[in-house]
Amino acid sequence: MKVSLAQINSCLGQFSYNADRMVRYAQKAKNNGSDLVIFPECSLTGYHPVDLLERDSVVEAQLKELERLAKRLPKDIGVFVGAITRNEKPGKNYFNSAVFIYRNKIQKIFHKELLPTYDVFDEARHITPGETSKNIFRFKGFRILTCICEDIWAWTLPGESEKQRYHTNPIKKIKDKNIDLIVNLSASPFHTKKWNQRKFVTEKCASHLRAPMIYVNMVGAQDELIYDGGSFAIDKKGRRVAQASRYKEDLVSFEIEPKTKKVKSGQKRIIRVNRTSDIYNALVLGVRDFVNKVGFQRVHLGLSGGIDSAVVAAIAADAIGSEKLTCIALPSKFNSPKSLSSAKTLAKNLNCEFIEMPIQELYECETKLVDQTFGKQKFSIVHENLQARTRGMLLMTYSNLNHSLLINTSNKSELAMGYSTLYGDQCGGLCPIGDLLKTEVVKLAEYINRNEEIIPRFIIDRPPSAELRKNQKDEDSLPKYDVLDKAVTNLVIKTKKPKGELERRVLKSMMQSEFKRWQAPPILKVSDHAFGRGRRLPVAHKAFY
Amino acid sequence: MKVSLAQINSCLGQFSYNADRMVRYAQKAKNNGSDLVIFPECSLTGYHPVDLLERDSVVEAQLKELERLAKRLPKDIGVFVGAITRNEKPGKNYFNSAVFIYRNKIQKIFHKELLPTYDVFDEARHITPGETSKNIFRFKGFRILTCICEDIWAWTLPGESEKQRYHTNPIKKIKDKNIDLIVNLSASPFHTKKWNQRKFVTEKCASHLRAPMIYVNMVGAQDELIYDGGSFAIDKKGRRVAQASRYKEDLVSFEIEPKTKKVKSGQKRIIRVNRTSDIYNALVLGVRDFVNKVGFQRVHLGLSGGIDSAVVAAIAADAIGSEKLTCIALPSKFNSPKSLSSAKTLAKNLNCEFIEMPIQELYECETKLVDQTFGKQKFSIVHENLQARTRGMLLMTYSNLNHSLLINTSNKSELAMGYSTLYGDQCGGLCPIGDLLKTEVVKLAEYINRNEEIIPRFIIDRPPSAELRKNQKDEDSLPKYDVLDKAVTNLVIKTKKPKGELERRVLKSMMQSEFKRWQAPPILKVSDHAFGRGRRLPVAHKAFY
Repeated sequence: MKVSLAQINSCLGQFSYNADRMVRYAQKAKNNGSDLVIFPECSLTGYHPVDLLERDSVVEAQLKELERLAKRLPKDIGVFVGAITRNEKPGKNYFNSAVFIYRNKIQKIFHKELLPTYDVFDEARHITPGETSKNIFRFKGFRILTCICEDIWAWTLPGESEKQRYHTNPIKKIKDKNIDLIVNLSASPFHTKKWNQRKFVTEKCASHLRAPMIYVNMVGAQDELIYDGGSFAIDKKGRRVAQASRYKEDLVSFEIEPKTKKVKSGQKRIIRVNRTSDIYNALVLGVRDFVNKVGFQRVHLGLSGGIDSAVVAAIAADAIGSEKLTCIALPSKFNSPKSLSSAKTLAKNLNCEFIEMPIQELYECETKLVDQTFGKQKFSIVHENLQARTRGMLLMTYSNLNHSLLINTSNKSELAMGYSTLYGDQCGGLCPIGDLLKTEVVKLAEYINRNEEIIPRFIIDRPPSAELRKNQKDEDSLPKYDVLDKAVTNLVIKTKKPKGELERRVLKSMMQSEFKRWQAPPILKVSDHAFGRGRRLPVAHKAFY
Repeated sequence: MKVSLAQINSCLGQFSYNADRMVRYAQKAKNNGSDLVIFPECSLTGYHPVDLLERDSVVEAQLKELERLAKRLPKDIGVFVGAITRNEKPGKNYFNSAVFIYRNKIQKIFHKELLPTYDVFDEARHITPGETSKNIFRFKGFRILTCICEDIWAWTLPGESEKQRYHTNPIKKIKDKNIDLIVNLSASPFHTKKWNQRKFVTEKCASHLRAPMIYVNMVGAQDELIYDGGSFAIDKKGRRVAQASRYKEDLVSFEIEPKTKKVKSGQKRIIRVNRTSDIYNALVLGVRDFVNKVGFQRVHLGLSGGIDSAVVAAIAADAIGSEKLTCIALPSKFNSPKSLSSAKTLAKNLNCEFIEMPIQELYECETKLVDQTFGKQKFSIVHENLQARTRGMLLMTYSNLNHSLLINTSNKSELAMGYSTLYGDQCGGLCPIGDLLKTEVVKLAEYINRNEEIIPRFIIDRPPSAELRKNQKDEDSLPKYDVLDKAVTNLVIKTKKPKGELERRVLKSMMQSEFKRWQAPPILKVSDHAFGRGRRLPVAHKAFY
């Protein structure tokens, strides 16, 4: 039996587009002689639909497309499609299902059992759990166990506390020892530890059931989440027998001998796992898919001559092409000339449009009005915020003029401390580096320069500054970034108790700036604890513990 | 046995403050001869903590406070306290518990079984379910069943579809027919249908178990949620035997005859249930608590001479006192002089500070810079947005100058259509009327004027306009509000399939403006389907069904 892993990039809610893609890939698989092809979780729906599922007409449209899809798929190949199906019994309205189609008919529907309700996941809102032990069927002489994403994640991960996160482990409790193949349909978002975790959990399953295992992940991005693909198959000993690419669509195949059930090694793409390049590739995919799926033709950003906007500009240029990127410098009298010239050099290196729009005169109009209304004001945070908000306003004006998406350039360290101006530098439709600590942004800059100097050295080496007042340095207001980033890691990523005076100060700043993050744009997630919808903190509270 | 319902206003995370309050109220109950006093769900923790529970040190601090509280409570009275407790077994880390304290000792801990994971609720993220059937104990000769909030909400509500939302009904499945008293600790957020729903579910429980029932609700507000209180007790036939106030703290008592278990009618506040006055009172409480709990001494808003800002100003003045409210008019040449004079009159009627800050000159500086940079521009949405964002910027400047909270004045109809400027009129730390349709805002204006003309008639009667261009009317861009509001009700509140051309157009505008609502401030919830954290829609998708 030949099996294909079809790692596709579905668009949430664009059911006919997703169906077309699956027909095309199923045909490809058929053409290479496959008997079975597997698509990712929710490959027809797109992931994650969350409250789109409140409107039953959305599911109705998807189910109609599923019926049409069944008729359009090539006949003599078994196809696993991920879709939302209805639950007519007590409980939530829907199942998250793997639909098995063969000979133009829906033959079986298997339901997900474990519903993630942590981090970005909200499946218990609309989904009712199934029972994995019922998901075994026979196809071409093979007994296949089907499961969906989270179903294989109940194992205690390396480095995790001993306490089990779930009351049950749907795979571990299966006693049936005659399974020939485990199939898992996933939509597993990227973060830097995921590659090893996926290896760990699939090996646990394969070894427990003594069966080869296929793991098909989605690729592409949706709002904050990036699906890095990297689908694979392993034999019962955990040896990789098929490996798909990461960060792009792919189809790879391998064979299992029908009588002996022995797995033959198949197509394997070469994967280099590296934290920094993984983050870079994930962010490029995240920006590209957001821009395309929302439907923008152009993007732009404020290029200050600092490292954050430099890195974001490089990512954006790679994601959608430098001809579609505009960088805008908006200097006031507090910006050093070197900032402007470095920004210019960077734009030239990236080969993108560069616009200079000095704000000094406008800023003076503003301070005049403020002084007229409230009396002459000494220089303060008021004047810093005015500059940042003037920039935000003008960048949004460019959006209006050119139907261009403003990309935000905030990083995680400053977002954590609230070291940003709401409606100022916090403006934008997407925040690509909002899950990267400042020290990680520096590493990304070095990575971008790995072959040639794209980001001028000055930008990387200069002491970070918002340049909103004379001789300002970030370190006047913040702890040094290496120290701050350790504190943010302990408090945000590891959610530890604050230790020492500095961590208590950071925690308090963090808690008190929650109102800013409440209004932040979608932040591309690359860590296991990002700001954004996966982290739900209140504004009005006093829990600084 | 005398029983007291202690309806308190807890502050999330401020454990010692909450404990102090409980000691004081328990003493009050003791002084009036009560044998038992019941506090709301999470009365020690504050509700809802959501991801504060990711940091175990928060729970550690709360548990220490619980120990101290047990020692501080009056000795000879049984006390139900709501708190988060630890789960050491597999599953999520915590329970949502009712802790029974007597004679300075924690005697019993009962856990919540049904964990809401719809709308604003996220309990499955950190809470493990208990078993209500285990929550029966004997106190002073009474067999008491304890349950927590959602545990009594599995009944199919009137008007709801037949399909049961839960697999189980923790109360219905209790076969024990010798229960003398049902106690429910709640933190049940206000919406306009809740009063009747609470009556319905408590009567179901009392009638099923043939026992009197006590329902103690939290009062106060936290971010988007308003707890309206209105705690009560009913006898086994559903007759109200105790009734606490709404929108403020209260303690009411009633008695049960120990031998016959007959309930005697106790203290009952008079409650008038009226949709518009309920909304008004809820919003006043919502604004007051947000401002106090975040820690602001002042609030301000842009007063345009339109109905939305007028209604919000009246609410804010009532909530925190007119001496702490500043109204700022920021006219451009597109604002009619009548707008300004009406705003002035309103501020005078409210007796609050009024500041005039004309933006025309500044707006011309902005257009000059835009024209210089991008070439002379014809009047367009660019110029409308510049005015709105200039106002946002200047209102935020006032925040900086006076440590004052900017109150947003968007309504639900315009939020639904994206008929607002991101970083412009969408600025603010709290959005009090963001869950009110335009037609409901008008009703609220009439309610505010019920005794005297506070909001000038002109403001209520004029055709709605953003006044961002010459002779602009909202109805140039939007359907008439009565028509639009019906469509928004069908699509957002009832989540129905769009019917007809207009509803399809509204749905599309709504879906395509999700990026604006992603960055909206907290919106006070008064309907069963508000924008905000209880409605989780993606930005990048194509599900316009």
